[in-house]
Amino acid sequence: MRLLPHLLAPLAASLLLGACATPPAVNATGDLGVVIERASGSVQIVERAPHRVLSRVEGLGDLSHASLVFSRDARFAYVFGRDGALTKVDLLEQRIVKRSLQAGNSIGGAISQDGKLVVAQNYTPGGIKVFDADTLAQLADIPAVDRDGKPSKVVGLADLPGNRFAYALFEAGEIWVVGLADPAKPAIAKYPAGQQPYDGLVSPEGRYYLAGLFGEDGIALLDTWHPEQGVKRILPGYGRGEEKLPVYKMPHLRGWAMTADRVFLPAIGHHEVLVADKRDWREIGRVKLLGQPVFAMVEPSHRRVWVNFAFPDNDKVQVVDTETLQVIATLKPGKAILHMEFSARGDEVWLSARDSDEVAVFDTRTLRETARFPSKSPSGIFFAWRANRIGM
Amino acid sequence: MRLLPHLLAPLAASLLLGACATPPAVNATGDLGVVIERASGSVQIVERAPHRVLSRVEGLGDLSHASLVFSRDARFAYVFGRDGALTKVDLLEQRIVKRSLQAGNSIGGAISQDGKLVVAQNYTPGGIKVFDADTLAQLADIPAVDRDGKPSKVVGLADLPGNRFAYALFEAGEIWVVGLADPAKPAIAKYPAGQQPYDGLVSPEGRYYLAGLFGEDGIALLDTWHPEQGVKRILPGYGRGEEKLPVYKMPHLRGWAMTADRVFLPAIGHHEVLVADKRDWREIGRVKLLGQPVFAMVEPSHRRVWVNFAFPDNDKVQVVDTETLQVIATLKPGKAILHMEFSARGDEVWLSARDSDEVAVFDTRTLRETARFPSKSPSGIFFAWRANRIGM
Repeated sequence: MRLLPHLLAPLAASLLLGACATPPAVNATGDLGVVIERASGSVQIVERAPHRVLSRVEGLGDLSHASLVFSRDARFAYVFGRDGALTKVDLLEQRIVKRSLQAGNSIGGAISQDGKLVVAQNYTPGGIKVFDADTLAQLADIPAVDRDGKPSKVVGLADLPGNRFAYALFEAGEIWVVGLADPAKPAIAKYPAGQQPYDGLVSPEGRYYLAGLFGEDGIALLDTWHPEQGVKRILPGYGRGEEKLPVYKMPHLRGWAMTADRVFLPAIGHHEVLVADKRDWREIGRVKLLGQPVFAMVEPSHRRVWVNFAFPDNDKVQVVDTETLQVIATLKPGKAILHMEFSARGDEVWLSARDSDEVAVFDTRTLRETARFPSKSPSGIFFAWRANRIGM
Repeated sequence: MRLLPHLLAPLAASLLLGACATPPAVNATGDLGVVIERASGSVQIVERAPHRVLSRVEGLGDLSHASLVFSRDARFAYVFGRDGALTKVDLLEQRIVKRSLQAGNSIGGAISQDGKLVVAQNYTPGGIKVFDADTLAQLADIPAVDRDGKPSKVVGLADLPGNRFAYALFEAGEIWVVGLADPAKPAIAKYPAGQQPYDGLVSPEGRYYLAGLFGEDGIALLDTWHPEQGVKRILPGYGRGEEKLPVYKMPHLRGWAMTADRVFLPAIGHHEVLVADKRDWREIGRVKLLGQPVFAMVEPSHRRVWVNFAFPDNDKVQVVDTETLQVIATLKPGKAILHMEFSARGDEVWLSARDSDEVAVFDTRTLRETARFPSKSPSGIFFAWRANRIGM
């Protein structure tokens, strides 16, 4: 076999730096996680076994409402800050490796199926920007401008198979699907969706894109296997309804829970979770709850849905049986429960208690607390298994 | 001969590693994989980006029909050898860390929901053994003995939520569900299943346990949410049928493909894949193929099912559209295609070509080959995303 010294040289340099200079900890990344500390611009890198905080990484800017995606090897987290910053954090070296102020106001992002493209969705200026996942070099800038030249805020960005992305334009009331097989030549398709889509998500296999509407009741549904059929309107009972109830906090669509045959949607304003049949998207029931739901998240076993609430009930969490639709437990894990994250196989759930400055860990089998640790105003919790899922 | 630059990287790494003291490479584990080299008792540790072989680990014994599960952090692979050996391989240090000859003849295993228990299923002696995932210390030995004291081969072992496991007893014709919340006190429930269950699997959320029957046509189904209802018989058309066709290789149930609403089953003996409705398990169609199917595996996007074949058609793979049920491509990736493994989000599939001594990588979007590397009689390919799935 022929050796190619010019190819080996850079490898040698980086390897030696890694091995001899400042040796980062050898650790597996499969069971790591990241907790957003929203008030202090920092994140905690956490491990599930044993339950512990490995490190705090600081200097990420405004992390209110921040979210993140993982590189496909689960080594890096791409954090989308509210201030438009995209920060790449190395979970092994426990430091920021790159940071780019890519927009004025951002609300999340996604990573392509092949892991090579990171995409940010922006409010100001509206549109999406596409970055190289390795270098964060900008590869494309796709404004969200309607036929009349008016810009839109972009919401509900989700990755689809085939290095495509779907998202919704709030002002324009459209769903766009962009193919980025060649990021230099984005293939954009546009579909009228309804008034003021405010969030969106894709079903776990990446087929159905759904956008919640703020300007009218109902959900916009695009079957991405049949985009030629256009957007359908489903669940006309989903929304604030005629009474226009006060809404203390808009529920997150990303918190929609899908079991094998049912969908659980946090109602808007009402103290309910709606239950729909996944096959025809028809409403089949409602579960009465103690407050306005924010997230309704299903255990990986599909056996139970966990729901947190808007103020003033945000110190409580309710657990719903997905089959009987009964509330089987009401827990009080701390003050201002903002987010919940299940372990990949669902043996435990982590809950961020912002106003307790703590993260609590519960065993899903016993519904008992098993661990608790300090965290500065924690909000989103993200485990590395997300690296392996479409739409995450 | 083709130049394979990706193969030079591990060589360079090992050369350079000799130069300084710190041995294990810092790497993320989320996108690693293991290829079983069945004839040489070795495994290759592989990486997806860039496509390369990191290392070969030797000394694992008889790996014909070997399978493995991953630790929950995706650092370790637990390899179940045909000779009854359980070998724990460290993917980061690229070496065997523990090895236990736990039975005379073994056929696979599983890992508990919480990642703390590794369980091996054995032919000789029949039964399962439970090991501590850290130390491989034996925690329980549960013989598979029927009412008359006769031992059974254990097949189809799968993990269920709540640290339970389900498996089938070939001779006894039973399905057992064992709760291992306390491994010292296994809680065993037994259900009559039918004649000679030969393999089993659990649906992705861990609810339905299905066992294929060799002694009669049909599939035994246990709804583990309602075990009190006992085992139901479904798909009476699944089996060799009245004609008792010659079967060159029994299809793998683990290769069953489940989309959101359909199940694809490799037929036994027939040149077909059966398609069933997932809601009521009724047969809704059959897809004619070029040979006897072995694995029918669905892309994570649910858009297509890939099928490999028994001799003499084992140099071919067919790709089936899950909606139209049409064969959309016939590929020839190499000689004796034994296994296929999709990347977590489905952008590519890796195929082991045993008699070509190669592993081939295909892009699922273009259906074109993107990489190929040497491997000694490769059989099973396992990516680390399995660490994050129930029943894997």
